[in-house]
Amino acid sequence: MNQPEREAPSLLLSAEERAKLWSVLGETIEQYVAGIRALPVSTEPEPEAVRALLRGFDFSRPMAAEEAIRLVADALARTQVHTPHPRYYGLFNPTPTTVGIAADALVAAFNPQLAAWKHNPFAVEAERHVIRELGSQFGYDRAQTTGVMTSGGSEANHTALLAALWSAFPELDAGGLRAVGAQPVFYVSAESHHSFHKASRMCGLGSKALREIPVDAELRMETSALEAAIREDRKHGFAPFLVVGTAGTTNAGSIDPLGEIAAITKRENLWFHTDAAWGGAAALVPELRPALEGIDSADSITLDAHKWLSVPMGAGIFLTRHREILEKTFHISAAYVPPQAAGIEAADPYGSSMHWSRRFIGLKILLSLAVAGWDGYAQTIRAMTKMGEELRAKLGAAGWEVVNRTPLPICCFRDGQARQASADDLETLVREVVASGQAWISTTRVRGSVPVLRACITSYRTDSDDLDLLVSSLNRARAKLGARATKRARVEA
Amino acid sequence: MNQPEREAPSLLLSAEERAKLWSVLGETIEQYVAGIRALPVSTEPEPEAVRALLRGFDFSRPMAAEEAIRLVADALARTQVHTPHPRYYGLFNPTPTTVGIAADALVAAFNPQLAAWKHNPFAVEAERHVIRELGSQFGYDRAQTTGVMTSGGSEANHTALLAALWSAFPELDAGGLRAVGAQPVFYVSAESHHSFHKASRMCGLGSKALREIPVDAELRMETSALEAAIREDRKHGFAPFLVVGTAGTTNAGSIDPLGEIAAITKRENLWFHTDAAWGGAAALVPELRPALEGIDSADSITLDAHKWLSVPMGAGIFLTRHREILEKTFHISAAYVPPQAAGIEAADPYGSSMHWSRRFIGLKILLSLAVAGWDGYAQTIRAMTKMGEELRAKLGAAGWEVVNRTPLPICCFRDGQARQASADDLETLVREVVASGQAWISTTRVRGSVPVLRACITSYRTDSDDLDLLVSSLNRARAKLGARATKRARVEA
Repeated sequence: MNQPEREAPSLLLSAEERAKLWSVLGETIEQYVAGIRALPVSTEPEPEAVRALLRGFDFSRPMAAEEAIRLVADALARTQVHTPHPRYYGLFNPTPTTVGIAADALVAAFNPQLAAWKHNPFAVEAERHVIRELGSQFGYDRAQTTGVMTSGGSEANHTALLAALWSAFPELDAGGLRAVGAQPVFYVSAESHHSFHKASRMCGLGSKALREIPVDAELRMETSALEAAIREDRKHGFAPFLVVGTAGTTNAGSIDPLGEIAAITKRENLWFHTDAAWGGAAALVPELRPALEGIDSADSITLDAHKWLSVPMGAGIFLTRHREILEKTFHISAAYVPPQAAGIEAADPYGSSMHWSRRFIGLKILLSLAVAGWDGYAQTIRAMTKMGEELRAKLGAAGWEVVNRTPLPICCFRDGQARQASADDLETLVREVVASGQAWISTTRVRGSVPVLRACITSYRTDSDDLDLLVSSLNRARAKLGARATKRARVEA
Repeated sequence: MNQPEREAPSLLLSAEERAKLWSVLGETIEQYVAGIRALPVSTEPEPEAVRALLRGFDFSRPMAAEEAIRLVADALARTQVHTPHPRYYGLFNPTPTTVGIAADALVAAFNPQLAAWKHNPFAVEAERHVIRELGSQFGYDRAQTTGVMTSGGSEANHTALLAALWSAFPELDAGGLRAVGAQPVFYVSAESHHSFHKASRMCGLGSKALREIPVDAELRMETSALEAAIREDRKHGFAPFLVVGTAGTTNAGSIDPLGEIAAITKRENLWFHTDAAWGGAAALVPELRPALEGIDSADSITLDAHKWLSVPMGAGIFLTRHREILEKTFHISAAYVPPQAAGIEAADPYGSSMHWSRRFIGLKILLSLAVAGWDGYAQTIRAMTKMGEELRAKLGAAGWEVVNRTPLPICCFRDGQARQASADDLETLVREVVASGQAWISTTRVRGSVPVLRACITSYRTDSDDLDLLVSSLNRARAKLGARATKRARVEA
C-alpha cells in the first residue's frame, strides 16, 4: 500500500524525490569508489576555506536533498585525508568493503534499536553469531564466547577495564572505588594504546593507576619488569587487577608475549585483556596465527572490525569468555525496560554494554564476512602482509632503515645515512611526501623517544605500483632535504 | 581513472558487481520506506526461527553481495519491531529522515576518521556547525557553545557526569576518586533515565552516589526535596557536585522545573546538566520553547538527534558552554597523535570525547537540517505534538484515562472504568494490541509503582487514521479482557 505522501510536514520526501535521491547516492558513492586512485591522497585546506564550504548550509534556507548530497560529497572529496585511498599509509583506517557501505545504509533505513532482543531478534542474533564466529578464530570455545559490539576500540578497551574491575572488586558496584580496600592498579606496555590512559581516568582510577611496563628491543612488554612491578605494587599496598597485552601496537605493530603474560596473570590471579584492535585479524590467516600465540587464554579481547576487517567506522568488538561478569558490570533495571523474554538464551544487549539503544553495528561485519568468506579474508590479509614485506624490501633497497620487527604490515623507518635526523627533519620529510598528494605517511616515536617515519598497509587495494610511488616520493623528499641541508651548511661556512 | 579491478583478493567487487549492489540497495530501501505502512508493526518470531535465518550466513561459503542484502532485508522486515512504522508508539525511536539514510551511506563510503581536525576538517567543522546551531536554539551563546557527538544519550549523559566530576574535583585526574576528600554524590529525579545509574557505576562512584529525588503529582522533580537532600548530604560529609534536570522523561514526558534547578545549582555551586535527549527538540518550535524555560542556564545538555530530530541511530549530542572543562576531562597525548594544527580554532575531536577514531555522526544531522530547514522541523514537531493532543482526546472519548500532563506527545493511560487493573492485566492488554500487528505500545509505571499503558508519537508519518487504529485496537483488547474476566467471575461464582 504505497500511500500518496502528504504535502507537509516537510521531513517527508515524495516518492519522486526519494527515487532521485537513491540514484544520486549510488552515483556519488560509485564515483568516489571507482575514482579514488586518481585523487591526491590528501590536500591541506585552509580552515577558512573549509568554513566557507559550510556557509551553504544555512538551515533557514532549505535545499533539495540531492543538491545537499552533491555539496557534501564534493566537500569531503576536496578536503579529507582519503583513508580509503590505496596510498593512504597512515593509522589503520581501511578502505571500506563495498557491502559494508551498503550495510550501513540498510541499518539506517530499518533503524533497529538494539537495546532488547524482542525489539530486533535478528539483529541481536546476527551480532551474537559474528561474535561467536570471531571468538572461535581466537581459539575461544564458540558456545562460551560472548561480548558486545562497540563504537570502536576505545570503548572496547574501556569495557575491558570495567569488566576487570567488576571481576576483582564487586563491592564497587554499590560503594564505588572509595569502598574498595586499596587503590586498584593495572599494567600495560609503554607502547600500548592511549585509550587505556583515558579509560583509567574515566573509571575513576586516575592516571596514576596505569603502570607502563617498559618494552624490549622488539618493542614487546618486558615480562620480567611486569612481574617486578606487580610484586612492588603488592608490597606497597596497591591492588593489581589487570594486565593488558597488545597484539599489534599502533606505533609499530609489535605483539607482546601473550603466552607469558597469560601465565603470569594466571599465577597472580589477574584479568588478562588482549588489545588486538588491528592485529587480531591475523588470526584469520593460518600462517600468521602463531604470532598471536596465547591469545586464547585472554579473559577478553578487543578487535576492531573497522581496522583490518575493513568494514566502515565504527565497529569495535569486545569479546570475553565471562558472560556473567559482563552482565554484572552493566546490569540495569527501569520501569520501561522490557522484561527478558523467557526461553531466550541470548541476553538483551543493553545488559552487557554501556548503551541502551544503539546502532546495529554488526550488520556490516556479518555482510562483509558473508560475501568475502573466511577464505576471502585470509587471502586479503595475506596479500596485505606480503605488501608490507615488499615495502620493507623496497625501503631497504633505497637506503632506508626499517627499525621495527613484526609480521604485520607496518614499517617504522629512518634514513640509513642520516640516522640521527631530528624529529623536525622527519616532519619536514613527511610534509613533503604528504604535500605531493602521492601518499600519506606520518611520524611517530619508538622506545619512548626515537623519532621515525611510519607507513602501514591499510588498504586492500594497495599494490606494488603504489609502493613504488611511496618510495620514490620519499626519495625525492630526502634529496630535497639533503640539498637544503647542504645549502645551509654552505651558507654557514 | 577507473582502473580495471584485479581478480583477487576478494574483498574487491568488480564495477559490475558494485553497480548491481547499489541498484539492489536503492530498491530494497525504497521498498521498505514506501511499503512500511502495509507491514504489521511487529511480529513475535520464535528464537529458533530467527536462528534458522542466520544459518544461511556460513562464512565458509561466500555468497553474492546482492543475495546477502536481500536475505538481510527480508529477515529484518519479517522479524523486527518496525520502529519506522507510523503506528509504532513505543520508546522514542523515530522514522528516520530519507536524507539521513543517505548520509549514513556516504559516511561509510568516505569513511572519515574523526580523531583529528587535519584528517577531516570538513567533518569536524560540520559537526561544530551543527553543535553551535543547536546550542543557540537552547539559548546558548553561539560562539561559546561546544560539545561532542556521541553514540547516543547514554554516552552524552556519561560525558556530563565526567565533565561535572572534572569541574568539581580536578585532583581525580591523577589520583582517581580515592584522592578526593569526600564521596561525591549527585541528584536526579526518580523519573530520570537509567543511564545515570549505569554511568554512576562506570565512573567509579558506585550506585549509591546517585540520589533519586522524589517527583510531584506531575512527575517533576520536587525542588524542596532536592534542597533538603543537598543539605543533608553536606551535613554528613558527602560532596554534592551535580544536579540533573530532565526535559522530557522517557516514561511520561514530564519536564523538571529547570529554572528552579538552575537557581539552586547556582547557589550551591553545582554543575547543572539537562537531559533533553528527546524533549529538547521542542526548542525548535516557538510555542513549545517556554516549556523548557531555564535550559539556557544549564552547564550542559544532552540532545539525541536520533530521537525527535528523526535521524537514524546513533546520533547523540553533548552540548556545553565549558569547552575548557570538556578538554580537561578528555585530554590525551601519544606519540602518533598528530600535533594540533596552528591557527585552527576548533579542537581535535579526540580531545573532547571518549573516543579516538569514530564515525562522522554529524553528517546525518547536518543533511536533515539542511533539507528540512528550521521551518520544516518546527512544522514536523508541531504536527507530532498535535497528534499527541488528538490521541489524548481520542483516548478520553473512548473511556481511557490519561494520567500524565505534558506538552510533549506521550500518553500514559489506563482504563477509566478499571483503574485498579493489575500490571498483569495491562500486560495482557498490550500483548493483544501488539499481537494484532496494528500498533506497538508498552506498559510502564509512574510514581514508582502505578502501572499504566504508554503510547508516544514517534513517527512524522503518523496521522489521524493511525490514531483511530490504535484506539480501536485498544478498545477491542479491553473488551476481550473484560469478557474473559466476566467468564472467570462466572466460573468462580
